[in-house]
Amino acid sequence: MGHPIYLDCDTGIDDSLAIAYLMAHPDVDLVGVGTVFGNIDAHRAARNTLDVLALGGHDHVPVAVGAEKPLAGNWDGGPAHIHGANGVGDVELPRSPREPESTAVELLLRLAREHRGRLRILAIGPLTNLARALDAEPDLPGLVESVVVMGGAAKAPGNVTPVAEANIVNDPEAADRVLSAPWPLTLVTLDVTMEHVLEEPDRAALLDADRPLPRALGQMLDVYFAFYVESFGRRCAPLHDPLAAAVAAAGATPVMAPAVPVVVDATDGPGRGQTICDLRGERVGHPPRPGARCRVVLSVDAPFAPHLLELLTRTP
Amino acid sequence: MGHPIYLDCDTGIDDSLAIAYLMAHPDVDLVGVGTVFGNIDAHRAARNTLDVLALGGHDHVPVAVGAEKPLAGNWDGGPAHIHGANGVGDVELPRSPREPESTAVELLLRLAREHRGRLRILAIGPLTNLARALDAEPDLPGLVESVVVMGGAAKAPGNVTPVAEANIVNDPEAADRVLSAPWPLTLVTLDVTMEHVLEEPDRAALLDADRPLPRALGQMLDVYFAFYVESFGRRCAPLHDPLAAAVAAAGATPVMAPAVPVVVDATDGPGRGQTICDLRGERVGHPPRPGARCRVVLSVDAPFAPHLLELLTRTP
Repeated sequence: MGHPIYLDCDTGIDDSLAIAYLMAHPDVDLVGVGTVFGNIDAHRAARNTLDVLALGGHDHVPVAVGAEKPLAGNWDGGPAHIHGANGVGDVELPRSPREPESTAVELLLRLAREHRGRLRILAIGPLTNLARALDAEPDLPGLVESVVVMGGAAKAPGNVTPVAEANIVNDPEAADRVLSAPWPLTLVTLDVTMEHVLEEPDRAALLDADRPLPRALGQMLDVYFAFYVESFGRRCAPLHDPLAAAVAAAGATPVMAPAVPVVVDATDGPGRGQTICDLRGERVGHPPRPGARCRVVLSVDAPFAPHLLELLTRTP
Repeated sequence: MGHPIYLDCDTGIDDSLAIAYLMAHPDVDLVGVGTVFGNIDAHRAARNTLDVLALGGHDHVPVAVGAEKPLAGNWDGGPAHIHGANGVGDVELPRSPREPESTAVELLLRLAREHRGRLRILAIGPLTNLARALDAEPDLPGLVESVVVMGGAAKAPGNVTPVAEANIVNDPEAADRVLSAPWPLTLVTLDVTMEHVLEEPDRAALLDADRPLPRALGQMLDVYFAFYVESFGRRCAPLHDPLAAAVAAAGATPVMAPAVPVVVDATDGPGRGQTICDLRGERVGHPPRPGARCRVVLSVDAPFAPHLLELLTRTP
């Protein structure tokens, strides 16, 4: 029996990789998935999630639709040039007959009570659902074990603005709420996710697999690889969401991961959406900071791509 | 005949090192110094400057007092725990009989016209005087050759807040004005200045010198070394201002120094005073960005401390 994980996501190509990783990991019990706007709208994200789960033989996992827009303001639609018009690289996945339930907040709260003290929350999209769950149940932090968030950038540049990462800038008010709640939170930043990438031979290995899910992932990655040429100078895919999944599943171990004060810039200024991490102690090994609950992951112990690829392509 | 440099400073221990460096550099003609609040108040900074200049045999260099507070808001006084109560590490320098003139803006504008097209501005304090000079003479950018600023942090942590460096956060409105003016500007950030430090043997060499200026600098550095134990875990002194002086004097050559868009956070949020540098092109060699006039110095070509020490201690 694996460790219970609730996944909050905006599926999404790298979200699909993360879901596939969680399904394949022997120590994970994926007990529910809530969706949110971000890479695609929350309803489409739920459809993609159901279809990816079905392709991976996980038709039992409940999927619930969550927030369609951020706490403040509106949402302009997902980045079709990154994730395709349908969120999964314009690949037509076999349609699961299941329909999502509603709402992600209800699903999360139900699972938190059901797995009291043991549930890990893994959030790889904007943090709107988690912020709403905190509003609905202020005791939520005491009900769960921990939270892992893919989001933010500490020393690395942002990917939406010079300093802001997509999941955080898509709802800075929610991120502020979630990062200041009293739960142990691990922030898997662009500092580490940009250092772990799938390359063309990896994509070829997915396409050559003997099961439909890795083949579909290999197909999805075509548009994602094309987008990252601008950043990397070559076709490849940084492993944002799957690396966060691996941190939640203990399949990747943070090495440089100081617990430091983190503040989200929720102004309307040029820093909006930045995760301001206080790394001023970096030359002296980040002495303990009372009250600093947020671990900022800057590196992990081993190359992640081979581990991911092995889990995704091995015959069950 | 050296290259004409106008220095704008808040003298300050590392400012004193910078002034000594400029006096010692054979290719520099230090044609004037304006002072500003920051490490100490602007009047005391002028007194310190006159005294350091006298100790270095440069009694001919005009010194003018500038801004006593930032464009917006007030100034809370200098950090006595870093620079001593008198700005120069509580060392009593021999008092120069000269008095400063007024104002720094007038001095700068006069020098810009006198050395039309050739003047380099080196600013190692808050940018208030430069901003006011731009207001007084909008054509100033066309009158000078270039501007070198010690200030800001790109990927490195700030030294006042997690993201803000002292010179910029002391007057973000002025910095915003100066960094967006149409002149070629080089920003010598904490990313590079924190990597070049004087150590105890270097301070001992200053104290052992046969002239009063290096001896006084060695004495001043005592309090400065003590302050930096918290950041470095040992007594030492990062060379913020002297390294900027060396960049202005071509005594240190920037290596990683991309010309990228830079915006100053002038909000009242947690990012106030940050120099937001767009380093998103770092993996592909920072392709040219039209309109990006600001070079952000992240590294220089050689260890700077030995060069500085050699200039400060050699017998003329």
